[in-house]
Amino acid sequence: MTEYDVITLGETMLRLTPPGFRRIEQATGFDIEVGGSESNTAIGLARLGLRVAWLSRLTDNPLGRLIASTIARHGVDTAHVVWTRADRVGLYFLEEGKAPRGSRVVYDRAHSAMSRMTAAKLPAELFQAHGARLLHLTGITPALSGDAAATAQRALELGRAAGWTISFDLNYRGQLWSPAAAQAGCDAFALAADLLFAPLDDIRLLYALEPDASAEAALAALAARYPQTTVVLTMGDQGVIGCAPGGTAQRQPAFLAEPVGRIGGGDAFVAGFLYGYLTAQTTEERLQRSLQWGAAVAALKYSIPGDAPLVDRSEVEALLAQGTGKMALQR
Amino acid sequence: MTEYDVITLGETMLRLTPPGFRRIEQATGFDIEVGGSESNTAIGLARLGLRVAWLSRLTDNPLGRLIASTIARHGVDTAHVVWTRADRVGLYFLEEGKAPRGSRVVYDRAHSAMSRMTAAKLPAELFQAHGARLLHLTGITPALSGDAAATAQRALELGRAAGWTISFDLNYRGQLWSPAAAQAGCDAFALAADLLFAPLDDIRLLYALEPDASAEAALAALAARYPQTTVVLTMGDQGVIGCAPGGTAQRQPAFLAEPVGRIGGGDAFVAGFLYGYLTAQTTEERLQRSLQWGAAVAALKYSIPGDAPLVDRSEVEALLAQGTGKMALQR
Amino acid sequence: MTEYDVITLGETMLRLTPPGFRRIEQATGFDIEVGGSESNTAIGLARLGLRVAWLSRLTDNPLGRLIASTIARHGVDTAHVVWTRADRVGLYFLEEGKAPRGSRVVYDRAHSAMSRMTAAKLPAELFQAHGARLLHLTGITPALSGDAAATAQRALELGRAAGWTISFDLNYRGQLWSPAAAQAGCDAFALAADLLFAPLDDIRLLYALEPDASAEAALAALAARYPQTTVVLTMGDQGVIGCAPGGTAQRQPAFLAEPVGRIGGGDAFVAGFLYGYLTAQTTEERLQRSLQWGAAVAALKYSIPGDAPLVDRSEVEALLAQGTGKMALQR
Amino acid sequence: MTEYDVITLGETMLRLTPPGFRRIEQATGFDIEVGGSESNTAIGLARLGLRVAWLSRLTDNPLGRLIASTIARHGVDTAHVVWTRADRVGLYFLEEGKAPRGSRVVYDRAHSAMSRMTAAKLPAELFQAHGARLLHLTGITPALSGDAAATAQRALELGRAAGWTISFDLNYRGQLWSPAAAQAGCDAFALAADLLFAPLDDIRLLYALEPDASAEAALAALAARYPQTTVVLTMGDQGVIGCAPGGTAQRQPAFLAEPVGRIGGGDAFVAGFLYGYLTAQTTEERLQRSLQWGAAVAALKYSIPGDAPLVDRSEVEALLAQGTGKMALQR
Amino acid sequence: MTEYDVITLGETMLRLTPPGFRRIEQATGFDIEVGGSESNTAIGLARLGLRVAWLSRLTDNPLGRLIASTIARHGVDTAHVVWTRADRVGLYFLEEGKAPRGSRVVYDRAHSAMSRMTAAKLPAELFQAHGARLLHLTGITPALSGDAAATAQRALELGRAAGWTISFDLNYRGQLWSPAAAQAGCDAFALAADLLFAPLDDIRLLYALEPDASAEAALAALAARYPQTTVVLTMGDQGVIGCAPGGTAQRQPAFLAEPVGRIGGGDAFVAGFLYGYLTAQTTEERLQRSLQWGAAVAALKYSIPGDAPLVDRSEVEALLAQGTGKMALQR
Amino acid sequence: MTEYDVITLGETMLRLTPPGFRRIEQATGFDIEVGGSESNTAIGLARLGLRVAWLSRLTDNPLGRLIASTIARHGVDTAHVVWTRADRVGLYFLEEGKAPRGSRVVYDRAHSAMSRMTAAKLPAELFQAHGARLLHLTGITPALSGDAAATAQRALELGRAAGWTISFDLNYRGQLWSPAAAQAGCDAFALAADLLFAPLDDIRLLYALEPDASAEAALAALAARYPQTTVVLTMGDQGVIGCAPGGTAQRQPAFLAEPVGRIGGGDAFVAGFLYGYLTAQTTEERLQRSLQWGAAVAALKYSIPGDAPLVDRSEVEALLAQGTGKMALQR
Repeated sequence: MTEYDVITLGETMLRLTPPGFRRIEQATGFDIEVGGSESNTAIGLARLGLRVAWLSRLTDNPLGRLIASTIARHGVDTAHVVWTRADRVGLYFLEEGKAPRGSRVVYDRAHSAMSRMTAAKLPAELFQAHGARLLHLTGITPALSGDAAATAQRALELGRAAGWTISFDLNYRGQLWSPAAAQAGCDAFALAADLLFAPLDDIRLLYALEPDASAEAALAALAARYPQTTVVLTMGDQGVIGCAPGGTAQRQPAFLAEPVGRIGGGDAFVAGFLYGYLTAQTTEERLQRSLQWGAAVAALKYSIPGDAPLVDRSEVEALLAQGTGKMALQR
Repeated sequence: MTEYDVITLGETMLRLTPPGFRRIEQATGFDIEVGGSESNTAIGLARLGLRVAWLSRLTDNPLGRLIASTIARHGVDTAHVVWTRADRVGLYFLEEGKAPRGSRVVYDRAHSAMSRMTAAKLPAELFQAHGARLLHLTGITPALSGDAAATAQRALELGRAAGWTISFDLNYRGQLWSPAAAQAGCDAFALAADLLFAPLDDIRLLYALEPDASAEAALAALAARYPQTTVVLTMGDQGVIGCAPGGTAQRQPAFLAEPVGRIGGGDAFVAGFLYGYLTAQTTEERLQRSLQWGAAVAALKYSIPGDAPLVDRSEVEALLAQGTGKMALQR
Repeated sequence: MTEYDVITLGETMLRLTPPGFRRIEQATGFDIEVGGSESNTAIGLARLGLRVAWLSRLTDNPLGRLIASTIARHGVDTAHVVWTRADRVGLYFLEEGKAPRGSRVVYDRAHSAMSRMTAAKLPAELFQAHGARLLHLTGITPALSGDAAATAQRALELGRAAGWTISFDLNYRGQLWSPAAAQAGCDAFALAADLLFAPLDDIRLLYALEPDASAEAALAALAARYPQTTVVLTMGDQGVIGCAPGGTAQRQPAFLAEPVGRIGGGDAFVAGFLYGYLTAQTTEERLQRSLQWGAAVAALKYSIPGDAPLVDRSEVEALLAQGTGKMALQR
Repeated sequence: MTEYDVITLGETMLRLTPPGFRRIEQATGFDIEVGGSESNTAIGLARLGLRVAWLSRLTDNPLGRLIASTIARHGVDTAHVVWTRADRVGLYFLEEGKAPRGSRVVYDRAHSAMSRMTAAKLPAELFQAHGARLLHLTGITPALSGDAAATAQRALELGRAAGWTISFDLNYRGQLWSPAAAQAGCDAFALAADLLFAPLDDIRLLYALEPDASAEAALAALAARYPQTTVVLTMGDQGVIGCAPGGTAQRQPAFLAEPVGRIGGGDAFVAGFLYGYLTAQTTEERLQRSLQWGAAVAALKYSIPGDAPLVDRSEVEALLAQGTGKMALQR
Repeated sequence: MTEYDVITLGETMLRLTPPGFRRIEQATGFDIEVGGSESNTAIGLARLGLRVAWLSRLTDNPLGRLIASTIARHGVDTAHVVWTRADRVGLYFLEEGKAPRGSRVVYDRAHSAMSRMTAAKLPAELFQAHGARLLHLTGITPALSGDAAATAQRALELGRAAGWTISFDLNYRGQLWSPAAAQAGCDAFALAADLLFAPLDDIRLLYALEPDASAEAALAALAARYPQTTVVLTMGDQGVIGCAPGGTAQRQPAFLAEPVGRIGGGDAFVAGFLYGYLTAQTTEERLQRSLQWGAAVAALKYSIPGDAPLVDRSEVEALLAQGTGKMALQR
Repeated sequence: MTEYDVITLGETMLRLTPPGFRRIEQATGFDIEVGGSESNTAIGLARLGLRVAWLSRLTDNPLGRLIASTIARHGVDTAHVVWTRADRVGLYFLEEGKAPRGSRVVYDRAHSAMSRMTAAKLPAELFQAHGARLLHLTGITPALSGDAAATAQRALELGRAAGWTISFDLNYRGQLWSPAAAQAGCDAFALAADLLFAPLDDIRLLYALEPDASAEAALAALAARYPQTTVVLTMGDQGVIGCAPGGTAQRQPAFLAEPVGRIGGGDAFVAGFLYGYLTAQTTEERLQRSLQWGAAVAALKYSIPGDAPLVDRSEVEALLAQGTGKMALQR
């Protein structure tokens, strides 16, 4: 039985993007990327050196195989993916913008194979005490469909039963559900989490805080409802803030970045954070180390086209050693 | 009230093709084309000089608008398209092959806006005695869904009521329905048609003829069942054969072609045929002229990337005058 | 008789640009765009929802047809274009620069079909009282040739006779004529205009003001000479200033933009301005509303490759509602 | 301990090809492929469903990682690759030609990491009785260097000691060594082989047969020297011929193909052959079945850009069922 | 004073081609090539090892410099080009076709700098007894304009006065002048030539022979009018035929070719012929050798994208040694 | 005997870069550029109008010829390059980064033809009193190999013997040698130089100064050791500082630039400096003029893709006249 450091579950799509900031209406071709929040994180973790399995359901056609092989090439184990002849492969179209035109996503993910994955299809044999150390889920999966929500819920229960650490990234998607529905749909996951990630803006929105509620206020609100979990709030250029149960909030500034690929930055943050968390030597250093690794991997991701954080551990270490700013040309 | 020569109805999709005969699993980008049997024919007719309207239902997002504007740029009237915020834009992925690997289509057209178009959404005001001269439908529309089938059926009834010529291209799609279902689903259209188009191979398959039944035998079988219609059977490199009700079969050889874009050849044939048909001076010359124009437009289409026959009338005339072979470089 | 909101007249060229900021001497390929000041504005107006016709003269070859169909696909009526077998299609080569190297245009527009359009070729039947509401001309047309100047002059006379609003964009092109010639050549248009657009810098140059003359001084100079027209001066990052006859100057700041396509920004401004102008509910709000719409459409244009403002009305409204800054990713 | 069906060892390079049949002197860019005879075969075998490990030595830089991850994505186990900071990644430049200009390879593989792999670096733990069923080597490895030759020799000895089937593809490379040197350098492998592959032309050249010696004559010459092995000679369009020890020669015609990617056809043949061989139900059918699978996989490979046979088992089965000719478009 | 083997004079244009057999109306980009009959020949000669100067007149802008530097990189001396700030750089648009659609050229060369080159601008100092050995002109230059015709005429006179061999390629361009005008305009050149090249078809057309007049009949007709010159007639796939004054006709079959770049094949033939001619050891072998070299260089050119014969002498020698057919892959 | 203004010697490589800031591990293609410090400078000088010869050793294959013809097209004389059938063409792979990920170079230049050039291969006939005015060498050549170091040393001796000005750019490459080795290996060149260029950072590193030693301190250290030479230190955004023997330091600020191609900026600076130096009218203006030209050419280079400064003299003059900032669009 292979053992993993991290198991994750979620939907991954083909991303189709017109090159050169062209609008879709101007497009004559699409660049292809493969993206999904959980598989992005999985790729980051695998490249940093952990053993990771990604669970999902995919249509067995060339599009589905393109997704799986792209994830596998970075060292993620895709052997447990559930394959089907039915349903379809989810797509999303990204129209990259420049100010004042924001980037725009056109989802075409309805009726996807993952949205129709039932709990019974979970590879139960993996969910054993020694199967893994940490289960990572996001709020996208319960947003996809009732089936997907039940599958994520079942994975959560199995993971907890096995004694694994539970990581949950709220990952609110306004095109999939309303703030209220998202709050309700994510509640069980947040209540069971050991690690809870979310953008501060989304917390304000989902938990009906003041639009300018401070990060500390948001942390307090979450601690009141989810006292058992470490909470990490991301704030874009303002960096991140994290707080362990009963602990004090710790801040980590963002690294300077000139983004060429913003999509996937949050997933990269989680990958870095989880790597830092799982490799920490002591509990004392754990949160700060995790925040640093998260911020560094996210910043490096911004410089990389596509959705996944194609970084090496040595690059992250070099960035952490340097502090900030662009690294010089080495030749 | 604008008058049209031809009105047509059908689904058009974005076609995504990896360049350079790459497999989808190797793809890093897709070339974008816009293709649909009826709009391909409509574009051919408009470029040849007829007034054409294309009816359909499209999702109002950048993908849908890309489809409509691409069809409109070639002179087809898209003002009567039904727009919706719901459903999705149909896609198909084309993996171009070389022998012995055949080209392969992966459809992703389920749940499309056109498949959910109801008869009530037909722009009834167009279906008047003077709205048009000819209605062109294909067997793809009834294959899409019950809604689409009912919509096509309703268009057929309206067109007949207005006294228009009815053109029907069987266009069997084995990924959408079985031969038996196709035969049943197309029957009403074939029974009402004035012009009926089909590949000989598909007639053998749908009407359970011998696999090597001759073209004449197929014509006879169709004449027995659909005595009212002119029947045109395409036979690839073997050219085409056509027969008017009670007439004698006429053959037209294929023009020599080195294909760079096979998709849409049948639709181009129909465009050429209908142009020849609608512009014939006498009934005597009509069928032969139509077959010639069909064969010439189809051959030219093969030389053009994408799905639509982007030809000019002068080019077709030059090819008809020359007979066959590649035209010389003019400089 | 179709009625239009706006009719415009001018030359449109193929734009050929080496990708990736390459110099022409390094180029191995050119990206193709279609650009002309008046057709850029026409496309913007059509996309915003107005009925627009673009008049011009084009050589009937594939290059000319590429221009016309590209303009038509965005909803502009090109049915009144005058086609000829003679002359040539105008081209311009754009070498995109980054500081300190400025972008550079190499014109190849001499001997173009439009430069040889005579007044007699104007589709006189359009120039009726109910043919349109507004005629838009620019200073490029009189700069092209004597024929083109006479044609623009004749259009002006016909438009005024029909009682239309006259819009004139000075659009000085230093490669086509000298400041003095431009001032003289544009004078009749400015004297007849209801709306006069120009960059402040060009006004300083053509009207021999001090190089650092203030916008107010320039407005005063123009008001003295052209008291009948609203004047709008654009000042790049400094925004715009406008003044109605006898009114007070109103300023509109520029929206923040990270340009990927600067060419056509001025034409986009005019499109936005004219849309705001023609859709204003009251005279009181008209100038300010027009300036806002102009600034917003121009800023959005900067984010779009190519020459034309491929924006939607809803995007402009969202930007106006938001004020400034880049819009967030919606997903 | 993972068990494999096939283990192979060899050098894989980045292939750089100017697109569109351009000469290298005209090139402005290179398409990147990953190619090596043994890894091409390994990819084919893995896609057909066997468990395959590829052994090699690679420089640990982005080029080396690109090679390994590209091979891994198709399901080949690359975990046993030996990584080094020293040496370089082999390259080859392919200038694709059309008649009368032949395709041309410019090797840049000297000093590569694989050419400096010593026998001591072989992962000895794999070479156990149950480690695998078949070892596949080619004549390229002994041609690379003395180190590489000794490493291949050692692998051969280990494989034989473990009782595995030994497959050897002569794969003569005229740019690496002379015919005489190749004959001498390959002799030990041929003497130990159970399966020996070579183009007929190369056998004529290396074994100093008449230039027009028949296939039967070549088989006889090889049987005299290497009586223990099945011999398979490929003859391009003329198909293949094979003969088991003491058996009678069997011929398999080539499948019709319109090549878009000739490179790797021989490796694809071996992949198909070995799949047929290892999955044969009876000894009687084995040789013919292997020849058929080899010919079919090779023909499909010709239609696929790049070096590796990216085929599915179902495609091969369909081609075998059909016999020959291009498969029809399925839609 | 540099000495040359060959001096040539003519117009060279930028060639703009939509990739992938797209029509210009479908194009989103153009590939850039540099092409002119005389400079194509000059490049071929320089690559084969002769010293060549190309004379022309070019506009001094990035387009003109792109032309000159592209010609110079292959070893042709462009130091004597006449530069001007006036006029324009000639262009031509190539729409590559596949049967039955022929390739199509849209010229945009009117008003070019070369068409306005006057005889006075010829670098007279080059036209000395030892300046060169051979002057090569084509029938395109007199077709461009009266100025260009007079310039070519003056070059002819100077070359003859210096005792150089005169080579003249009729190169009829139907878009530039009529057959009758071409015959008249080329007469003086043909009357002065030592070497006269033309396609057989063009001779039939210009000299009003029967459309199916034999090559021998055409040779006889030309010998009657131009008895002083060797005549070489090209006949496409049928090879070439040549006849020296008073000699017997010699035929050379064409080499097998799968063309990827037909444009420039005739110019390549002339380059090969002139190389063979100027390097012949004896008069006896000269014509046959020249025909062979011409046919071989032309065949190789067909395999090369762009207009110029980017071949090496060793490749031509290998092809001549081999005879025909595609050369094998060397690796 | 041709006379040159500048002769330079060095290695030039093919540069392969994944487009769009992609990592090499993501790459599917490489853009090709040609780059070498000395040939970059040579190209800049030739474009500015000087007569320049570039000496090197290249493998005679298509890669080597691509390098030579690319350099030649910009007017540099490559006739003295030493060609060999042995060795290989140096390559480097550039992974362009955005902050915080720095650009990264993967060298693949070991075993190159230039690294094996011996002093005996220097074209001694060029090294005469009137052969040239200035010899330019860099610290890369002695870093390549002992052979290359000896060749550079011999060139230095010959140049000095001929009385030429000696220019030396330290150009430290940390991937080729250590700071200490570089200091030792460059010492003889610096001791013989009339012009010595280096980045301030490299001087601090090689001469073991304090990491934050001032430019003045570095100048003083260098003046103490190399009193005979003018020293020019580049400081990135901080501009440059130069000091003639016994003179006072002069500073030149950097021109504003938005880099699209940073590689080659230092070589461009040297080209501009040397042009200014060699064309100065008086000794008084020489250093300041040289610094200005150097800074201007470097800034323009930053805006140009590839390694070489493809600028025109008129552009530099316009930038010098303007001072700073981006030049306006001219149209």
